[in-house]
Amino acid sequence: MSILQEISQNVKNIKPLEFNILARQLNLIKKELRRGVRKPFKEVIDVSMGDLHMSGLKPLSFIRQVLAACLYPPLVNSSKLPVDVRQRAQKLLGECVGGSVGSYTHTAGIPEIVHSISEFITRRDGGAPSVPENIYISPGSQWSIMNILKVLVNSESNPRTGVLTPVPSHCTTTSCITSLGGVVVPYYLTEEQGWQLQVAELQRALEFAKGVCNPVALYVINPGNPSGQVQSRKSMQEVIQFVSEKRLFLLADEVYQDLVYGDENEFLSYKRVLAEMGLPLSDTAELASFHSASKGFIGECGLRGGYVEMVNLDSAVMKHIHTMFSTDSCAPVLGQIALDLMTNPPQPGDPSYPLYVTETEHIRKTLAHNVKIVPEVLNSLPGFCCQPVEGGAFAFPRLYLPPKVIQKAKEMELHPDSFYCIRLLEEAGVLVLPGSEYEQKEGTFHISSNKF
Amino acid sequence: MSILQEISQNVKNIKPLEFNILARQLNLIKKELRRGVRKPFKEVIDVSMGDLHMSGLKPLSFIRQVLAACLYPPLVNSSKLPVDVRQRAQKLLGECVGGSVGSYTHTAGIPEIVHSISEFITRRDGGAPSVPENIYISPGSQWSIMNILKVLVNSESNPRTGVLTPVPSHCTTTSCITSLGGVVVPYYLTEEQGWQLQVAELQRALEFAKGVCNPVALYVINPGNPSGQVQSRKSMQEVIQFVSEKRLFLLADEVYQDLVYGDENEFLSYKRVLAEMGLPLSDTAELASFHSASKGFIGECGLRGGYVEMVNLDSAVMKHIHTMFSTDSCAPVLGQIALDLMTNPPQPGDPSYPLYVTETEHIRKTLAHNVKIVPEVLNSLPGFCCQPVEGGAFAFPRLYLPPKVIQKAKEMELHPDSFYCIRLLEEAGVLVLPGSEYEQKEGTFHISSNKF
Repeated sequence: MSILQEISQNVKNIKPLEFNILARQLNLIKKELRRGVRKPFKEVIDVSMGDLHMSGLKPLSFIRQVLAACLYPPLVNSSKLPVDVRQRAQKLLGECVGGSVGSYTHTAGIPEIVHSISEFITRRDGGAPSVPENIYISPGSQWSIMNILKVLVNSESNPRTGVLTPVPSHCTTTSCITSLGGVVVPYYLTEEQGWQLQVAELQRALEFAKGVCNPVALYVINPGNPSGQVQSRKSMQEVIQFVSEKRLFLLADEVYQDLVYGDENEFLSYKRVLAEMGLPLSDTAELASFHSASKGFIGECGLRGGYVEMVNLDSAVMKHIHTMFSTDSCAPVLGQIALDLMTNPPQPGDPSYPLYVTETEHIRKTLAHNVKIVPEVLNSLPGFCCQPVEGGAFAFPRLYLPPKVIQKAKEMELHPDSFYCIRLLEEAGVLVLPGSEYEQKEGTFHISSNKF
Repeated sequence: MSILQEISQNVKNIKPLEFNILARQLNLIKKELRRGVRKPFKEVIDVSMGDLHMSGLKPLSFIRQVLAACLYPPLVNSSKLPVDVRQRAQKLLGECVGGSVGSYTHTAGIPEIVHSISEFITRRDGGAPSVPENIYISPGSQWSIMNILKVLVNSESNPRTGVLTPVPSHCTTTSCITSLGGVVVPYYLTEEQGWQLQVAELQRALEFAKGVCNPVALYVINPGNPSGQVQSRKSMQEVIQFVSEKRLFLLADEVYQDLVYGDENEFLSYKRVLAEMGLPLSDTAELASFHSASKGFIGECGLRGGYVEMVNLDSAVMKHIHTMFSTDSCAPVLGQIALDLMTNPPQPGDPSYPLYVTETEHIRKTLAHNVKIVPEVLNSLPGFCCQPVEGGAFAFPRLYLPPKVIQKAKEMELHPDSFYCIRLLEEAGVLVLPGSEYEQKEGTFHISSNKF
């Protein structure tokens, strides 16, 4: 009998991933294919993850050349690499302690890189000032979200701390909240209106929460994952008014900011919209904005680099956030460098610029093409209804399943959409994720698929 | 006034780093030196961190060549790189999803790398079997420790969960325990006997703990940090007997396993010693062993790769550990690859082997030399007493401070040894860490310095 009799209820409450069931099946099928077992398909098409390179889109040469030269400095002198690549690598190595990407950095990140991210934010946000001291680099944005939640969620409070989170949304954030002893307060995006976030629904969720927990924060993700919705300035202004009136902390997950499609859609950061709303809001509403090297055109998920910028936080709170970020070592140095390169890409006139433009344009065009056809194709299939896709990595079509399928799934103790995904994998060799992994309105079913 | 009124006591309890005070002073001094301000030194010597590359020791060519080729695959065809480097890079790229180090991997790590780590462990431990399913790769070993502690420490239990931890030890582990709402139960290493771990002291600490909390685990670090002590087989057997009798989970931090000096010292893993103690212990004592790409000869702290191997855990508990490791994305892929290269270095006959041996021998000799002279020099200074150093990255000499210094420090609201470290930095340009950062016996003072 194990020593660990009393495992924390918070840990037990974390929902195991539906993906685990599919991953087991996927491994089985791959093994069978290798053994030569005949199937209706020759290889599995995996569109379950928001991962550009997994989907066959190529890493950007500039990014990889600079990273390789930082890792193996003799390349800084190689005539085979463009001169701006070599200069950039040399500059970055000069910013590493001991001139090596193998050394630890400040726990907040290499100061020069933090500074350069801060300048990027200011440019992006039309001049709204950004302060390097408010930025922390971490091994992916999720790690930053976890650290901020540790400060937000008071594990000893009674009633427990609540965080409003969208349905659907990826389960990593809700798992974090649960593991810290917080309460996930769902608010539903309006599918029929392209997965819009509506303040009336935030209001409803908040009222509902008040009997159950002490809501302190609102988590939004824009562009949406998996919804694919892009918020308008008006919608964001309403959200900011709401959090300000209700005294909620705003967690703005903006990792998909590069992936916005169509001329009528534009990414605006919450920080910018807030700044442009003027006083007194612009000086008081508290928010944290997250970004990542994983989700833009560079798509470097495997390097694990993300950051958070804090806006309007009390210095007494920042002290604790600083301590939280100091309890572990720094973020991976190559992930930090990827953030530097992502936020400061080659400029016109640089030797690497033409290739950089060609490569990013290829990705942009591929995505624009897919974003158009994914809803078209899905809506032409019986039993599917897909909202237009405005941004992000995924489409999240609704699936109308016949009662017999739902019954069969229940008999197998599976979510009906998980049952559908397993059958789709077995019969067509296509791996998508079930809506139940993301939560969805009771009685509705969905699948999520990337558009790469 | 901030929204965040009720910050969790667990977060508030985390002790801010003494290092922060020194870091501020360090930045000031560096700025002054750049401005041309005259000081008794021309540059600061930083020996505060266990970081090979920061200290000027060079990264290993083989490691960096393979990593660079994985990042920038055209190098796989470069005749400038040895053929075994290119083959290895090609093999590793074949194990990455989509052939890119920019893709996500399994949350436990790339299966082939986990497998190769498992084989390394079996070889290292004289054949004691290792199972890949019990191994998880993470962004540094500290992250693994945190995840295991999340399962061990029950934040809702009353009395709270206790974890026995050595004094001195690095503050990251104690911060983890505190942040989870656990109780740090100190046990003191015996300085006068070269910082030995003594079971009688474990016994005392456990008895003491019983009135305060519910002790469930013992954390040991061998080779010691900052103590520099290496445990004998006999000492480890006693610890295993103790945890088994007292039903404690053993957290064995073995990240310094490569750094053992002198012919009479040898690293033995807790898993090996346990296996060789035979039944029934070998089948029942529960432990987790941690290792890292940061602390061996490769010294790749910045890549953030570590792993944990679980031994004898109940499958019901493993399920929760698996869930914990699934709540965030994978470890940095290049950190994973560094682990593969560290645990499977070039072999005799490989083109890279001669250079690999030359480079590791240089590091080995530098360390062996320093390990000999560090205690000699320190013990020749008035007010210092340094135990022999057997392993690890640090020496942790005792510092005898005159009452006037202690009084002065108190007036400045500083720990006396922090006061000493600040003065050493200001007057000699040498950065070491104060013993108060690591905890120490009441009324004693120390500094920690690396030996690179």
